[in-house]
Amino acid sequence: MATKGQLTRQRILDEASPVFHRKGFLITTINDLLAATGMTKGNIYFHFANKEEIGLEVLRRARKTFKQFLDDSLRGETPGASLDNFFRHALERNRSKGFVGGCLFGNTALEACDNAPPFAELVGEVFAEWIGKLEETIEAAQDSGQVRQDLPASHLAELIVGTIEGGIMQSRLQKDAGPLQRALESLRILLELKV
Amino acid sequence: MATKGQLTRQRILDEASPVFHRKGFLITTINDLLAATGMTKGNIYFHFANKEEIGLEVLRRARKTFKQFLDDSLRGETPGASLDNFFRHALERNRSKGFVGGCLFGNTALEACDNAPPFAELVGEVFAEWIGKLEETIEAAQDSGQVRQDLPASHLAELIVGTIEGGIMQSRLQKDAGPLQRALESLRILLELKV
Repeated sequence: MATKGQLTRQRILDEASPVFHRKGFLITTINDLLAATGMTKGNIYFHFANKEEIGLEVLRRARKTFKQFLDDSLRGETPGASLDNFFRHALERNRSKGFVGGCLFGNTALEACDNAPPFAELVGEVFAEWIGKLEETIEAAQDSGQVRQDLPASHLAELIVGTIEGGIMQSRLQKDAGPLQRALESLRILLELKV
Repeated sequence: MATKGQLTRQRILDEASPVFHRKGFLITTINDLLAATGMTKGNIYFHFANKEEIGLEVLRRARKTFKQFLDDSLRGETPGASLDNFFRHALERNRSKGFVGGCLFGNTALEACDNAPPFAELVGEVFAEWIGKLEETIEAAQDSGQVRQDLPASHLAELIVGTIEGGIMQSRLQKDAGPLQRALESLRILLELKV
């Protein structure tokens, strides 16, 4: 059973997470976190050394959640179906949030990569894992003739991640699923994806 | 001839621009701008009502510069060559900055779209202009048989913008031109671009 201290720590992370997601890790202040958690400074600093430590822990938890999302969505009866399912779930995942907050990793990439090395490093690892998993599936889909074979799977995997991040960016700006949806539809055609 | 006041205003914008570019509009403080310009608060506030006004003016100037970049780079002897030149210049433009700072519009999109509507609106307009110009060229390239014709030019233009933004994101994280370069090379092949 979790101790009272563990539960409080958990609660801080739960309440801080959406704030960081919407405002960013660098611009969120400790006062924002006090408001979100309803706790005192003393209480929060008993559990975490500083704001950065809370932020990094939130990002580590998000990484686990995203890994689970990849495992759940990048699957199907064939490699082509797996990729198609992943595209569908990626759109749904973002649409269900109304394109508010967007991709925590993409946000953090742009916010942190010249200013906050520990955050940038963590996001770099998440992207590498994401690309690695896509690459495996694309390679299998190329072998089964469900994805075009004239481009390396690693390049296509990297392209898909970039295109999804760029699509989320445009969809968030417009608060409309259209850009991400069209990007994924175009990718299906360009990759000659067969299910 | 510019008055002394106009020159000071100009200087504030010149010095503020790289700070906003690297740190973002929301996280940059007025103290950062004082340090960058070497001016007093009184001096800056004589020319601008607040930090947001400086930021928006910096973004408006960047929009003009980017429009000029599009006019200069999206040109060639044929529509296909224009698109190819644009891809080359987009890579060079980012590589020459060492992938520090990245795309001011992309950064601002993610930073501002849930938090700072005037910034988000301006960036939305820049993206729309960018997509519009690409769409014209792609349409012409489709007519001349230099780009595949089975996808609407508007979808391809939107996809290119998203893919470039996503590629810059990945290149910035890795401080390596590779991801953006490979994304553009893949796009050339996927679009069946002929020069």
